[in-house]
Amino acid sequence: MSEARKRLSELARLVGGKVVGDGGVEIERVRSIEEAGAGDITFLTHPRYRSHLKSCKASAIIVGPDLPLPESLPPGRGYLQVSQPYVAFAKILTVFSPPLQYDRQISRQTTIDPSAFLGKGVTVFPHVYVGRGVKVAGGSVLFPGVFLGDGVEVGEECVLYPQVTIREGCRVGNRVILHAGVVIGSDGFGYAGEGKKRIKIPQVGTVEIEDDVEIGANTTVDRATLGRTIIGHGTKIDNLVHIAHNVVVGERSLIVAQTGIAGSTRIGKEVILAGQVGVVNHIEIGDRARIGPQSGVPHSVPPGAWLSGGIAAAPHKEWLKVMALLPRLPKLWSAVRRLELKVAELARRAGKGGKVHARR
Amino acid sequence: MSEARKRLSELARLVGGKVVGDGGVEIERVRSIEEAGAGDITFLTHPRYRSHLKSCKASAIIVGPDLPLPESLPPGRGYLQVSQPYVAFAKILTVFSPPLQYDRQISRQTTIDPSAFLGKGVTVFPHVYVGRGVKVAGGSVLFPGVFLGDGVEVGEECVLYPQVTIREGCRVGNRVILHAGVVIGSDGFGYAGEGKKRIKIPQVGTVEIEDDVEIGANTTVDRATLGRTIIGHGTKIDNLVHIAHNVVVGERSLIVAQTGIAGSTRIGKEVILAGQVGVVNHIEIGDRARIGPQSGVPHSVPPGAWLSGGIAAAPHKEWLKVMALLPRLPKLWSAVRRLELKVAELARRAGKGGKVHARR
Amino acid sequence: MSEARKRLSELARLVGGKVVGDGGVEIERVRSIEEAGAGDITFLTHPRYRSHLKSCKASAIIVGPDLPLPESLPPGRGYLQVSQPYVAFAKILTVFSPPLQYDRQISRQTTIDPSAFLGKGVTVFPHVYVGRGVKVAGGSVLFPGVFLGDGVEVGEECVLYPQVTIREGCRVGNRVILHAGVVIGSDGFGYAGEGKKRIKIPQVGTVEIEDDVEIGANTTVDRATLGRTIIGHGTKIDNLVHIAHNVVVGERSLIVAQTGIAGSTRIGKEVILAGQVGVVNHIEIGDRARIGPQSGVPHSVPPGAWLSGGIAAAPHKEWLKVMALLPRLPKLWSAVRRLELKVAELARRAGKGGKVHARR
Repeated sequence: MSEARKRLSELARLVGGKVVGDGGVEIERVRSIEEAGAGDITFLTHPRYRSHLKSCKASAIIVGPDLPLPESLPPGRGYLQVSQPYVAFAKILTVFSPPLQYDRQISRQTTIDPSAFLGKGVTVFPHVYVGRGVKVAGGSVLFPGVFLGDGVEVGEECVLYPQVTIREGCRVGNRVILHAGVVIGSDGFGYAGEGKKRIKIPQVGTVEIEDDVEIGANTTVDRATLGRTIIGHGTKIDNLVHIAHNVVVGERSLIVAQTGIAGSTRIGKEVILAGQVGVVNHIEIGDRARIGPQSGVPHSVPPGAWLSGGIAAAPHKEWLKVMALLPRLPKLWSAVRRLELKVAELARRAGKGGKVHARR
Repeated sequence: MSEARKRLSELARLVGGKVVGDGGVEIERVRSIEEAGAGDITFLTHPRYRSHLKSCKASAIIVGPDLPLPESLPPGRGYLQVSQPYVAFAKILTVFSPPLQYDRQISRQTTIDPSAFLGKGVTVFPHVYVGRGVKVAGGSVLFPGVFLGDGVEVGEECVLYPQVTIREGCRVGNRVILHAGVVIGSDGFGYAGEGKKRIKIPQVGTVEIEDDVEIGANTTVDRATLGRTIIGHGTKIDNLVHIAHNVVVGERSLIVAQTGIAGSTRIGKEVILAGQVGVVNHIEIGDRARIGPQSGVPHSVPPGAWLSGGIAAAPHKEWLKVMALLPRLPKLWSAVRRLELKVAELARRAGKGGKVHARR
Repeated sequence: MSEARKRLSELARLVGGKVVGDGGVEIERVRSIEEAGAGDITFLTHPRYRSHLKSCKASAIIVGPDLPLPESLPPGRGYLQVSQPYVAFAKILTVFSPPLQYDRQISRQTTIDPSAFLGKGVTVFPHVYVGRGVKVAGGSVLFPGVFLGDGVEVGEECVLYPQVTIREGCRVGNRVILHAGVVIGSDGFGYAGEGKKRIKIPQVGTVEIEDDVEIGANTTVDRATLGRTIIGHGTKIDNLVHIAHNVVVGERSLIVAQTGIAGSTRIGKEVILAGQVGVVNHIEIGDRARIGPQSGVPHSVPPGAWLSGGIAAAPHKEWLKVMALLPRLPKLWSAVRRLELKVAELARRAGKGGKVHARR
């Protein structure tokens, strides 16, 4: 955290909010609602934590527009009421924790091909490898262990954390963040069977990561067989995700941890794929669709759809019974169908003497 | 892509196919069916793309034997009819995109133990670590950040991409490709409980990767507790796969992304495990078995079996209802069984006055 | 394996067991039950391998207290009977395979900030990066490619395998093992939406890994938004696991491969999460709870509960039918409910002429 110190009223101006209580109180830190004390600002974005409000000792609390606030507050305490508390929280956090500054130096313990171009203010840590014809635009940071293959292009103000690999010919836009261990441009998984032998299909395409993308630790994005695998503008990808060859992800989508997307599938704009989702190859997921955690997606999904397929874990012994019966679901349907026919026949015959009324 | 340029008839000879149309047309590139134009050859391997055939502007199209072709074609256009289009595609792609050539130099910015042996034509990039007694056979390539622990052996013509770790004593055969971030020989997950304390079981075995194996980015293969974890000849493994200690995978199997195989399990030959499959420990999956995506495999599987267990995501609101009812499946079965008995009794009694015929 | 050589009776004393047979036989190696021969000790911990007992040629076998043993044994053969065979196996394995010794040298091909402190007997391999103000306590080992960001603290006798990344400000206790490719302290996945733009929430917290934790290859542990992500004392985590920001894992828990835990969730003590489990955010899993493989956990779990949600793969064609019917489960319930009502009505009417008895 930095040495910043702001009055609550200044913060309110910054985020476009309203002060309830003491606008003059000085804030020097952001802390969680359980830990915050004097000099701290905290936030209430999740209703789950509302119970902490009363005991909270923070000098200020960021709240949404709907929360009923107390009529009077002691001096040195205030609320900051905003329309989007989470956005205000993010902005205020940036005030007190500005981005790390790098030394804009090129380490000598690094390997940079003479044909590579590094823009103004680029930081290159030791043990980095930069191949032939690579271009890295101004202000970007290459942490130790980063590998940029021949012909790679990286835009402005990117941060590539340790051990990031970008293979030959792949392109990364501006303000992209690649977390430690990310692999961009590994070969797609493609083989042609010829008798007992499998022939590797050369993967000669590339990957294009557009502006403002962030990709989580140890995620892998395979290069296209032909053409490009594309991650669209502003899309955010979590840790340990697998993006196969020729996948195209649209703009501003969110892909949560451990999800896998198989080859040539197209994901639309502003799509949300929750954690551990699996999407098969050669399908389309429409714009703004939303897929729940652990779901399998075997068919194309229309725009705006909200699908789920995850199963809530149940007590083990009961689950064993459920599992034993699940494969017999078709038999159960047949049994019910047979019963329906029999009951209809019985009712028909009984009906000779009067109508059957089922109580509802 | 290279500067290669071939007549369609030459390509037909190369892959054992038949030209329909202009065999003299010159091809200089392979492109996807949507993008291909004059001078390009493209392919139709997936029926999904058949609709693109008419509008396709490629000079040549690789097709299978069953596709009805037009009777006449304008000059400068042709079809290449083959029995296995995907194999032909792979071969032709190799003509136009030959494998990258490496400089066969040993970087000085690397750390190689004097006792290590590097064969003829080995390429070692900077920032590589090669331990005591390591052997790397002719033509292999070690990218930046590769770690070869003491006693590791790597065969001929292997490619180890950036940040690959092979721990002490593990062996890799010939023509093996390990993608960026692969870990071979990490400790298996084994502990013995003694009271509250867990004792780590030393993992003193190794890993053996046989010839012609390819392993995807950030996949991990644990060393055996005793003996060896084995990946058989020609097996191909995708990204982010977990292979536990003492697993044995047979020859020419395919293991798709994010699948996990627990300890001591044996996978046969030519097995296919689709994406995100989980296989428990101490079981056997027979030769040529095939397991669908996201399936859990809790028991041994006979040779040739085709199993699935993945669930297709459904509209969220409907899925909530399904999920609420799934744990009550045993109750539903009981209800149906009770109904069957009651209906039989009713029918028996009604039968006194005539037989019940269910319409089928 | 080392050159150790022990009599069976010595081993029995070491692990607190009883010799049945020849206590004088000399043991020089531990091998699996299939491979063991003269001079070897092996073990029978899993009943599955009991059939191997008769053909086993090992000089000694570690067995549990309940196994019926033969009345007489030839000289040079013995059983070592113990209460916990797996613990005895671990201890004896440590005798014959003592931990690797490191040279306790600091490589010159490494980058260590002058403000960093390295304790006595620390080993630093080449190509390591140690940032400002880092502290590494005595006896720890940093393998090639390790990255320690500014202000990182690592305790005594830790082993950090190749390519491990620990980002700024994170702390690791004593005797911690981090396998190759582990990432500690990557940014949590947090964004606030403002119109079409997503604002990154700065992730300014850290990670604390307590003593005696072991973390598997390519696992990722994200730093907290505020405060700390915590992995408790003695907890063991397998490969390719995802731990999100602000998660707290208690002591001595086991988290098996490819499991993911979403943000702010609290996992208790001695919890077991099997492979490929997914746990949602903001919940609690109580002490000693146990979650079966591939389960999804959407709600808090009480202490001691045993939950499962994984589905066993079934023959593909049958599974297709099950899958088609699963979304229609609510309709099936309705059909059964309607039948129950109709049958009750029929029975009531038939009852005028006599009671319906369902045979049970």
